[in-house]
Amino acid sequence: MNNNLIVKNALLVTCDENHNVLEDAAIVVSGNTIKWVGPSQNLERDLDNIAPADAKIIDGSNKILMPGLINMHSHCGDSLFRGLVENLPLEQWLQTLWKSQAVILRSAENCRLGAQLGFAELLLGGTTTTMDNYWRPEQSVAAALDAGMRIATGGIFFDTPGMDGFTIDDRVAQAEALFAEHGNNEEIFIGTMPHGTYTAGPDSIRKAVEIANENDGFFSVHAAETKVEQQTIRDRYQTSVIRLLNDAGALSSRTALAHCVHVDDEEIELMATNNTNVVHNPLSNLKLASGFAPVCKMMDKGINVTLGTDGPISGNDMDMWFAMRLAATIHKAADENPSAISSHQALHMATLNGARALSAEDMIGSIEEGERADFILLDITGPHAMPMFDPVSHLVFSASKNDVSDVFISGRQVVANRKLLTLDMPDISQRIAKLQPAVKAALEA
Amino acid sequence: MNNNLIVKNALLVTCDENHNVLEDAAIVVSGNTIKWVGPSQNLERDLDNIAPADAKIIDGSNKILMPGLINMHSHCGDSLFRGLVENLPLEQWLQTLWKSQAVILRSAENCRLGAQLGFAELLLGGTTTTMDNYWRPEQSVAAALDAGMRIATGGIFFDTPGMDGFTIDDRVAQAEALFAEHGNNEEIFIGTMPHGTYTAGPDSIRKAVEIANENDGFFSVHAAETKVEQQTIRDRYQTSVIRLLNDAGALSSRTALAHCVHVDDEEIELMATNNTNVVHNPLSNLKLASGFAPVCKMMDKGINVTLGTDGPISGNDMDMWFAMRLAATIHKAADENPSAISSHQALHMATLNGARALSAEDMIGSIEEGERADFILLDITGPHAMPMFDPVSHLVFSASKNDVSDVFISGRQVVANRKLLTLDMPDISQRIAKLQPAVKAALEA
Repeated sequence: MNNNLIVKNALLVTCDENHNVLEDAAIVVSGNTIKWVGPSQNLERDLDNIAPADAKIIDGSNKILMPGLINMHSHCGDSLFRGLVENLPLEQWLQTLWKSQAVILRSAENCRLGAQLGFAELLLGGTTTTMDNYWRPEQSVAAALDAGMRIATGGIFFDTPGMDGFTIDDRVAQAEALFAEHGNNEEIFIGTMPHGTYTAGPDSIRKAVEIANENDGFFSVHAAETKVEQQTIRDRYQTSVIRLLNDAGALSSRTALAHCVHVDDEEIELMATNNTNVVHNPLSNLKLASGFAPVCKMMDKGINVTLGTDGPISGNDMDMWFAMRLAATIHKAADENPSAISSHQALHMATLNGARALSAEDMIGSIEEGERADFILLDITGPHAMPMFDPVSHLVFSASKNDVSDVFISGRQVVANRKLLTLDMPDISQRIAKLQPAVKAALEA
Repeated sequence: MNNNLIVKNALLVTCDENHNVLEDAAIVVSGNTIKWVGPSQNLERDLDNIAPADAKIIDGSNKILMPGLINMHSHCGDSLFRGLVENLPLEQWLQTLWKSQAVILRSAENCRLGAQLGFAELLLGGTTTTMDNYWRPEQSVAAALDAGMRIATGGIFFDTPGMDGFTIDDRVAQAEALFAEHGNNEEIFIGTMPHGTYTAGPDSIRKAVEIANENDGFFSVHAAETKVEQQTIRDRYQTSVIRLLNDAGALSSRTALAHCVHVDDEEIELMATNNTNVVHNPLSNLKLASGFAPVCKMMDKGINVTLGTDGPISGNDMDMWFAMRLAATIHKAADENPSAISSHQALHMATLNGARALSAEDMIGSIEEGERADFILLDITGPHAMPMFDPVSHLVFSASKNDVSDVFISGRQVVANRKLLTLDMPDISQRIAKLQPAVKAALEA
């Protein structure tokens, strides 16, 4: 497949370190890589030297061109259970849901279908990379490779057999097998993903860190999401979630901690000292009444805060634009500071910061020469896009997922004019409709 | 114009008092009114008796049919200044903005253009009624009548001459003139709209109430939005905002108080006792760091809480779906209660409660026989809409403005397949582009 292409006449929001914005810009893609970035007129002047002769030309007029969004915390498979259970505290809500999941997720095929539905939603909304945490991650990887989604995933760890029936030894073997099979694939990220410190004890956490380190993979875990969770760890181990993770050697620059809503100053210091990345999931924290993560404090301490949607059962969708706008607004009110979290910071949380957390800032997260061609085009002709005094302010405070018209990952076009190219939406839709009664019935069984 | 039409095979979310939902439903519209509501098969069976012979048939398969949303607090004209000033506390932010507004809004034509841009956004997103508070409200009314938007607006009151140069006496005359000209138009709502108790003193408030009462109109005012505002009223009048309004006779069932973020228990009691309506504007309260309105407490006291977007300079858009989802989630976290504000409550805030605040619950806000045909169709084929276990949960927690495909107001179709029928978007776009440099330049002058 020839992925040589040119996009020209676009408003380029690079999301690079310096927040560079370039009007009437062009990029040249060759294979999976951005080969050239510059003013459209420079490209025109020196076309033969800059672009391959067979490059397909895409007109970016009336579009913003920017990197694809990086969702650092999803549970795509949970798309199967969207809206099934509502209005319960986190622990009760999980236990209710698990009744249905225990039946439905026995099937690897269902896990694959859930991943596909989630990817469909993410791709249409301009998310090009997602760190996904789910049962049967090998199904998610397979679905991602088919769909062209850039995935970060890995073996999950629970000490007690989960709804899939696997023991912790099975999980260790599965985590290692994922690395063996996909660890060398430069297009995706493999790691280890214990569920949480209250569901996977210190030994399992240590084992997961060890496997990640041995394979140069990432490590991610739910951490300090709720008060109940912190209390559980205090009761069980006489320590706190982040301290436990630190003692297990789990805090490093390869680590992404999901949530960190209830962390004390010393825990923040521990994360900062160890260059640990945090994934902020504002919508989930609101809907599940978990609270307001101390994002400003963490950023002030130099922690790399990234952004996630969490799963579609705590959302009920996976909309990174919504997450970005929430991140840029809720802390203003929570901290009583209208300057808290600038639009530039919020945009980086959804792009470059995610790339940094994956140790992949030279590969994705910004539009720069030499990086992978993971980019999106957004329509800016809607009434909510005018006037536009600052494209970054527009992206954070006014744009939405439906403005995304075209999506490319490693140079491969996965969405064209708001239509999925790599997933068969009518087929997915039919299979979901067929499965839906069983999802509901399992809950009531 | 013949507005006789049938919509059939739709998933009907009535938003009526009992939250009735009807699968495979149909409605029949004759002129500006919903004449019949029921199962599609009943319509088929008795078509000749139920529907006019010349009725246009619309297939509602794969769509939700529901009432148009009612935005109880907008400043559509501020669309001209979207994103112009960011990251300042409310008072500073207003003062900076006013520099540009003072130049731009001298022109009635610009006020009209701003209203049109705002209506375009609202209509495309399925908002059919908006209570709009802006300079030169006669321009908003004219634009609304052209666009088919159902507007609630009225004369504004400032004690000092505003950027339009009018004195308080001018404003009183203008408020009365609006009633004289449009008070008998049954398709729109006229009221009086003092800006706030800190910008319009007790005498002006009293006068505004008097004019509203004399003309059987509504009364609306910004109230208790910020701590600074409450402090100002304390310093100036040794009372509080809601007490001042009560003393001025401004609390009644015809009154809609925008914001009410900083109100004490006694003020809540005063509003409840007087059947005063509150307009919650969650996004604005977050972005301007105003705080979290005590919505649950107010609802527990029986106050009718409605929903607004506020203007697009504190948003930066006017997206009622976003407002609805925020209303349904932020109070869960703020009150540490995952059951706070159910999806049904949130949906009513955006529909029926707005109608009640306008004393128009027999006219708009729900899909019932005899009401005006203000309804919208939403596409439910997107990945974020499946599976759907509960359409109300879908509408509140997963749907977005871009799902709205068709919009009808008083039987007149204003949006068809996501395209505006009653506003010339390319023309508006060109005029905005032409005005944009002056908006910016005025800020820096």
